[in-house]
Order: sequence, then C-alpha cells, then structure tokens
Amino acid sequence: MWAELRPIGRNPGTGGYRRFAWTGADADCRTWFQEQAEARGLAYETDRNGNQWAWLGDPTAGDAVVTGSHLDSVPDGGAFDGPLGVVSSFAALDELRRRGVEFTRPVAVTNFGDEEGARFGLACVGSRLTAGQLTKAQAYDLRDADGVSLPQAMEAAGYDPDAIGPDPERLARVGAFVELHVEQGRALAVPDSGSAAGRGSAVGIASAIWPHGRWRFDFRGEANHAGTTRLADRRDPMLTYAETVLAARREAELAGAVATFGKISVEPNGVNAIPSLVRGWLDSRAADQATLDTVVAAIEQAAKDRAQRDGVDLAVVRESFTPVVEFEHALRDELGRLLGGRVPVLGTGAGHDAGILSGSVPTAMLFVRNPTGVSHSPAEYAAEDDCAAGVLALADVLEGLACR
Amino acid sequence: MWAELRPIGRNPGTGGYRRFAWTGADADCRTWFQEQAEARGLAYETDRNGNQWAWLGDPTAGDAVVTGSHLDSVPDGGAFDGPLGVVSSFAALDELRRRGVEFTRPVAVTNFGDEEGARFGLACVGSRLTAGQLTKAQAYDLRDADGVSLPQAMEAAGYDPDAIGPDPERLARVGAFVELHVEQGRALAVPDSGSAAGRGSAVGIASAIWPHGRWRFDFRGEANHAGTTRLADRRDPMLTYAETVLAARREAELAGAVATFGKISVEPNGVNAIPSLVRGWLDSRAADQATLDTVVAAIEQAAKDRAQRDGVDLAVVRESFTPVVEFEHALRDELGRLLGGRVPVLGTGAGHDAGILSGSVPTAMLFVRNPTGVSHSPAEYAAEDDCAAGVLALADVLEGLACR
Repeated sequence: MWAELRPIGRNPGTGGYRRFAWTGADADCRTWFQEQAEARGLAYETDRNGNQWAWLGDPTAGDAVVTGSHLDSVPDGGAFDGPLGVVSSFAALDELRRRGVEFTRPVAVTNFGDEEGARFGLACVGSRLTAGQLTKAQAYDLRDADGVSLPQAMEAAGYDPDAIGPDPERLARVGAFVELHVEQGRALAVPDSGSAAGRGSAVGIASAIWPHGRWRFDFRGEANHAGTTRLADRRDPMLTYAETVLAARREAELAGAVATFGKISVEPNGVNAIPSLVRGWLDSRAADQATLDTVVAAIEQAAKDRAQRDGVDLAVVRESFTPVVEFEHALRDELGRLLGGRVPVLGTGAGHDAGILSGSVPTAMLFVRNPTGVSHSPAEYAAEDDCAAGVLALADVLEGLACR
Repeated sequence: MWAELRPIGRNPGTGGYRRFAWTGADADCRTWFQEQAEARGLAYETDRNGNQWAWLGDPTAGDAVVTGSHLDSVPDGGAFDGPLGVVSSFAALDELRRRGVEFTRPVAVTNFGDEEGARFGLACVGSRLTAGQLTKAQAYDLRDADGVSLPQAMEAAGYDPDAIGPDPERLARVGAFVELHVEQGRALAVPDSGSAAGRGSAVGIASAIWPHGRWRFDFRGEANHAGTTRLADRRDPMLTYAETVLAARREAELAGAVATFGKISVEPNGVNAIPSLVRGWLDSRAADQATLDTVVAAIEQAAKDRAQRDGVDLAVVRESFTPVVEFEHALRDELGRLLGGRVPVLGTGAGHDAGILSGSVPTAMLFVRNPTGVSHSPAEYAAEDDCAAGVLALADVLEGLACR
C-alpha cells in the first residue's frame, strides 16, 4: 500500500510532502484511497464535506465502528502524519480477514479532508464541518494565500461546495471512532521521561488533547526606503514582530506551555524596503485553558508595548481555537483492556479529527512510537516493527469492538 | 507623459507599483519609453544589456551628454522613484526645444534596466553590466524567487541574453551622465535639518552615495510540530532571526548608520510547524566604509551568539556591495554654477545607476524635494511645482553642458 502512496505530492528538493487540500496531490491521494477500498470490496463513498468513507457491512445499520485519519500534509511534512492511520486501518481490516472473524457491527475506514489546514489556515475542516463546529458561511469565508476560496477550490476539484455543512445523520450511525496516529513527541520513545512508568512502548492510548489555538498578529507600519529613511523617522513593523517572537518563547517557557511563530507574510518583502505590513501567526497550546489564556495574553501585551514604541499598529485575530479534549473514559478504558492492560496512556499537544469528533461520538486514539519525536518534517519517522505493532493493536481493538 | 505611464504595473489593492525587470509591466514601461522617443524624433535603440537609449544628434560622435534614470520599481513602490528622472529628461528636452537652443554635443535620454533589483536580488543590473561591474557569468547565476534565471527572463521578454556584458565602446561615447531623482529622505524638505543651511529647496545636487550592501542570513534549524515538540527539543531558527533583527536596529542606532531586515523567506512557513529555514536579508549603509564594516560585524556576531543558543546553523552571504561613491567634483561644481550657486549639495544613502556609472564616466545627480521623505512606497510624493523646478534645473544643466 505504501508504495503507491509514497511518491504523491513529494517535493524532490526537500523530500517533504505538499499534499494540500483540494490540490492535484490531494486528488491523487483520494484516488489511492478509493482504489484501496475497491480492491477490498468495500463500499466507497464521499460525504457532503468531501470526507472519504470505505464501508464493510451496511452503512445505514448504525452503531458502526469507524477508523481512519487523514492524507493531507503540512508544507514539507513527513510520510506518517495522517497516512499511517489510513494505511493501518486498511491493514487492520486485512488482518481481521486473515483471522476469519465475524463482524457484528458495520466497520468503516475514513480519510478526513483538510486536517492540517495548510492551505486555508484552519485545521480539521472536514471533521469540523461534519460535526457542526464550522458553519457553511464560515467555511465559505476561508481563502488560501492566492485568494482562492474554499468553495472555489472544492468545485475545481470536482466536489459540490453547495452541499457542505453539518451531517448529524451520518454521525448518528457511528458508534465509535478510533484514530491511529504517529506520536508527535517522544513520550513513547523515552522510557523514563514524564511521570508514567513503562513508556518504552510501541503503542499508546490517548488521554486528552491540550487546548490550542492560532492567532494572527497584523503589525502595520509604513513602507519606506531602507537606505534613506532615518531610524527616527521609521515605523518598522519587523522590529515589533521580532520582539513578539522572542516574547512568545519567553512566556511559553515560564508557563510550561508551547508557543510558536512558524508562518510569516511580509509586504512588500523587498530587500531595500522597510515593510508596511508584517503578519505573523502564533500557534500556542498548554495543558489547561487557564495557562493558555495567560500565555497568549502576555504575548499580546508584549506585542502591544513594543508596537507603541515602534509607531506600529497591531491587530490580533484568533483564527481558530480548540478547547481541551478529554477522550471518552469508557472507550479509552475498553481499549486498554483489549490491548492487555499494559499500554501507556498519554496526553498530546496536537489537534486531530478525533478531537473534533469526540464532541459528537465516543472517540479514542492510538499512538505509534516516534523515536525522534520529529514531526511535520521529512525526518518524521516510525520503525517498521512499531508500525506493524500499531496495525495489530488497531486490529485487536476493532475485533474487540466490532466482532464476536 | 505621466498619464500613459501611471497605470502600468499598478497594484489596485495597494496603489503601489510592481514593475519588476523583464515582466509584462516592465515591457509596457519600455514600450512607453520607445513611444516617447519616437514622438520626439529621437533615435531609439536598446544596448546589449537591455538599457534603452533615445538620441538627439549623432550617437557615434562622442562626448555625449546623457540623462535618465530607470522605470522599474520595488514591490509596491511609488510613482516617482525612477520614472521622475526619465519623464523629466524628456520634458527637459522639450523645454530646450522651446528655448530654441543649438546643441553642440549629442544628447541622450536613458532607461537603465533592473535598477531596483526587486526580482533577482541585485540592484543596478543594467548599469553594472554595461560598466563591467557585473560579469556575464555572475548575471547568468541570478535567479528570481520562482527559480527563473536572468537570461531566461530576458529571453522571454524578447532580448538576447547571449549579448550581455561590458560595453566600454558605448561608455566611451558618453562625456557626462546626469541623473535626476526624487529625494528619498527629507534633507531638501527640512530647512534646519543637518548641517548645511538653506535646505528648504526644490532641487539639490548630490555629493556622494553612502557605501551600502546586502547580506543574506540563512538560519537553519529543524522543522518540527509546533504543538508537540518540547521547547527544550527545538532548534527554532525564527528565534535567532528575531534576535538578529533587533540587534541590527541596536547596532545601527549606536553607529549612526541604517540597517534593515525588510525581506524574509521561511520554510515550510506553516502555522503549526517550527521552521527548518529562515532566510533574512539585511540592507545596511553608513557614511563611511569603516562604520559600515563595524555595524555589519556586530550584527553577525549577535546572530552567531544567539544561533549557538538556539542550536541553529548560520551562514551569512554578502550578496552585493557598493563602496562609497564621490561624484566628480568638477561636474558637481559646474552643475552648481549652472544652477546659480544657491542649490544645496547633499549625500544620500540610496544606490543609483549614476553611482555605478561614476566609475566610468563623469557623473552627477539632481534631487527633487520629497516633503515626507517617504519612498519605496505608494505614499512617495513630490509636489508638481517641485517637479517642474526639477525639469527646469535639468534643462539648465543640459543647456549649459550641451549647447552654446
């Protein structure tokens, strides 16, 4: 399965993946998904929000066990974030057929669209729409860097943007959703890190997703000639941006949270021109809501103070926010039992479709060990043995939930 | 003349100009130049480096008086930087014809290509090539942000990139070059600023161009997930960049120089990804070479220190450098006499084609007052009266130099 998926959307210069929602690379991934479904005799469909589903059993019977992840990527992302969950889902079904089990509940494999939000700036668009956490009007307002709107992009990819919106009927048919994902930290890789013992494990179960959000900082100054404008006459927003980047690191460190400025856009972005506009995006997460609020407020204050000194206007817009997600304890505990009770349980700072869907259906997550913790990078990695252990664990979970 | 030139390459969103070398907007500006030449019965030609010339009198006679500037722009630049010199050159010729003077030397109006360097990152490419300050091989290595090389861009615009290179024969025919330019600071606008008296003047004469250069800082870290990577595990080059931006301002302030980070490029530039690479361009200038060296060395040292702390690799490349230019004193003094002896003489931090050509031919510059000092921005401005005064001053100079 990996062989056909691996070359899609790969940038030969960086070795990283650029599989952005509703682009050609995304379409190729979607074709791959459909082919995998059809090769297994699964009933293939796309839902009103462009998410892909492959059904074993009757989709309308209800109480279905659904597993899957996403196939899109961040810019120059790795091979595992997303695809490992989809590939493992198909592989787990193959394993269950080898075991000759009898299914008592319908099972589906899914690929949720636009999980990373790399193109339109909002993560988990496919699952948010389905769960009613993003309205059609809000989705229609999303635009990529070239000004293309989400509905335009969907239409260009052959999907009907008029149909998008909440899908409670579909969710009502789902009895449980389990997402397998490569771990994006080193909790499973480092036996003695953190408080829990026994973390040197190929597979783990998620306890919670940290609250997290994205804020856009618009620093507006005045474009001017870099060679002839006296320092005292300048209103240079790059200075305010720089101070804010350093403040974000400082405040996150103080609070035990994370804060990152990873994306920037500058106008006019000329070597010999003082910028008129610097736009920086802050991603911040913390173990609880109060800590996150404190960190972001402190960063905003530092930005405001420096903006005043630089003669720069500052506007801060919260572009997305996801509150803390506690995965359903009953399902989490059942997974633990099905996996023999010795699998570690861990929290994560990363958002997932499972986090979005957990508001609507019982949801759980499995993590597969990542030896370096590197993710969102071509260096992202999981060992073959660990991937195989992940497939077996997911098969055990599906067998326990959907078979007799 | 302005009416036809004004709409070319104007961005309706910002009101600024995007006339980058060898693009469609540049081609339209070039067509405008040719039409202006032909409407006046001037002999039109382009030289081997794509610079445009419009001749009154015999181009081969030698000892020509040449005037002109450039038509390209920085990203979202203003209407005057460059075009004011070209428009004023044609207008000054019109004025001399009205005066009915007799020309004793050939006169030419020029448009030098790619002065701003907005597309390929090197300023004054047209004049540098002609003056032999940029070799054909170096020019062939220039690439724009999309990877298009300079020769590819020239060829696409219908020019022969094989012909480019030094043009000593052409320069040998030039007896004097005078460039009129909108001032890019406020020395002419503020009567009491600086040391010289009487600076409340519509027109000034250039004394010198400060030494200046462009340095590219490549900060390489490690791409990783912004939500799950512990701060201690990060190698985030955005932090190093931010510290360096603030150091540049500090060091320039201490030394009475200018230093600007106005252009940045980030990989992967995703909201939830720690960058693998941040590339920042430093533009720095000072009144003398020693000061400039000190400022840049101090900025590099600050960047190095912080890079070590952040686990980031730093490489600094000097992409261009122009030593101090003292305009020829004899020609400068003659301009002063021709303009009645009461015109202020001032230095500037901006590079110009006149600075490049001053190494090969006697060269002088006239500045026209800029009330706000704003330049490289849509807000760049010169009053109509001052523009008219600039045309008359240039006409006086041309009459004094080329007529009896």
